[in-house]
Amino acid sequence: MQFLQFTAESSSNGIRERDFTVGGVPGVLWSPAADAADRAPLVLMAHGGGNHKKHPAMSGRARLLVAGCGFHVAVLDAPGHGDRPRTAHDESEIAALFAARAAGEPEGPIVVRYNDHLAELAVPEYRALLDALQELPEIGADGPVGFWGINMGTAIGIPFVAVEPRISAAVFGQHWPDVLAEKAKQITIPIEFDLQWDDEHISREEGLALFDAFASKEKSLHVNSGKHKELPRFEADSAVRFFARHFGRAVTSLV
Amino acid sequence: MQFLQFTAESSSNGIRERDFTVGGVPGVLWSPAADAADRAPLVLMAHGGGNHKKHPAMSGRARLLVAGCGFHVAVLDAPGHGDRPRTAHDESEIAALFAARAAGEPEGPIVVRYNDHLAELAVPEYRALLDALQELPEIGADGPVGFWGINMGTAIGIPFVAVEPRISAAVFGQHWPDVLAEKAKQITIPIEFDLQWDDEHISREEGLALFDAFASKEKSLHVNSGKHKELPRFEADSAVRFFARHFGRAVTSLV
Repeated sequence: MQFLQFTAESSSNGIRERDFTVGGVPGVLWSPAADAADRAPLVLMAHGGGNHKKHPAMSGRARLLVAGCGFHVAVLDAPGHGDRPRTAHDESEIAALFAARAAGEPEGPIVVRYNDHLAELAVPEYRALLDALQELPEIGADGPVGFWGINMGTAIGIPFVAVEPRISAAVFGQHWPDVLAEKAKQITIPIEFDLQWDDEHISREEGLALFDAFASKEKSLHVNSGKHKELPRFEADSAVRFFARHFGRAVTSLV
Repeated sequence: MQFLQFTAESSSNGIRERDFTVGGVPGVLWSPAADAADRAPLVLMAHGGGNHKKHPAMSGRARLLVAGCGFHVAVLDAPGHGDRPRTAHDESEIAALFAARAAGEPEGPIVVRYNDHLAELAVPEYRALLDALQELPEIGADGPVGFWGINMGTAIGIPFVAVEPRISAAVFGQHWPDVLAEKAKQITIPIEFDLQWDDEHISREEGLALFDAFASKEKSLHVNSGKHKELPRFEADSAVRFFARHFGRAVTSLV
C-alpha cells in the first residue's frame, strides 16, 4: 500500500488544494475548504494529451465539482506529462505525432498506440491513488467515486474503469474505438460521453462506435457541432450535473 | 389578426394558467403569477401524438420553464387532438396506425404522413398564436421566443421554425427525416435534439440523419439508451437550461 505524501497546500475561494505524490507519481487533490471533516464523494480525473494535472481544463472542472457540489477531486500527471520525465519512447512518439501533423497525415494511429502505452502505465497508478485516497478520513472507503476524462483522459479512463469496481459513474469522450471498444464492453456503470460532430481527427462513425460499445444500461451521448478542440464549456456543467445526479448531491452553484 | 380570447384562469404554486382560443383553436398560456407586468421570454411548445395541450409532459415542462426561469409558455391543441374534433381523415389515419401496430408492421410511414398533414394545418395556427401573444404587454414583440416539441411536436415544430424568423432557439427530437430533413436544412438557430439509442420505431441512422440536416452553426444532440418512450426526465431539465442559456436567464430552481 502506497500512501499519499502531501508536499504543498493552499486555499483560495473556498477550495483547498493539496499537492501530493503517491508511489512517486505527482498529483493534486482539491477539496472544500470548509467542512473539512465531512465525508464527500470523490471524482478522479485524468488530463488530456500534452497537458498536466493543473491545466486550466482540470482546475476549472475541479472548481465546478468542489464549489458546486462539495466533492473531492484528484488528478495525476500522466506518464511523460507535467512534472514527470519523458522517456526516449515518449520523445519518439511525440516526434512521430508532430511529423504526422506537419505532413497533414492522420494523427489517430499514433495517438491510439501512444495513449494505449501510457494507459498501461497509468491504470495501476490510478488504482494506487484510489487506495490511498480512501484512507483519508474525509473520503473513506464507502463513498461514491466517479471518473472524468476526455481525449487521453478517456484512453486512460476506459481501461481503468473496466477493471475498477469502485467507480460508479464516469464521463468520457473524444477518442477512437480501435483499442478502447473492447474494454468499453466491460463497463456497465452509467456514463456520459462527449463527441464533436465535425471532429477533424475522429470520424463520426468512430466516435459513435466507441459510445455504442459500452455495456451500460444507462448511457448518454452528447454530440455538439464543432471541431475537435471546440467542445463547448457547457458540457463541463453537464458533467457536473451528471455526477451530482448519480451521487445524490445538489448542485448549489456553477461558478 | 386574430386575438386571444381568454376563457378560464387559475393560479397555483406561483404559476398562472390561462386557457384561451385563438382563431377558434384552444390553447393554454402559463406565466409567473408574481411580477405579472414584467416582460419575460416566451417558449412555444407542441405536444406529442395522441396527447393534448395539458398532458403532464406539457404541464411539467411548463412548470420547469415558468417556476425555474420566469418564462411564459404556450401550447395549442394540435388538429384532431385534445378539445378539437377529429375529422374522417384523422379517424382513418389513427385506425391505420393501430392496425399497423396490431400487425407488428412499421408505424413510421403512417406517422410520417399523418404528422405532415397535421403540421400543414398547425403551422399557420402557431404563427397566428405568436402574433396574438406578442400583443400581450407581458410578452411584447421584442423578447426572445423559443420552440420546444418532441415526437409530433417536432413534426409540427420543424416546418414552423423553418418559416418563422421570430424563433431564436429550439428543442426537437425523435422523428424521421423523410419529410423533415429538407425543412431542417432551412433552420440556422441553435438547437438541442433528443434521440433514443434503442428506439424501436426510429432507427439510429434516421435519427442521426435528421440531426445532421439542421444548418445551425450551434447544435447539440442528446442520445440516451432506451426505447422510444423512455426519454429520460433529465432531458427536460437540460432543455430548460438550453433556453435559459440562450435567453440570458438564470435557472433559479428546477422544481
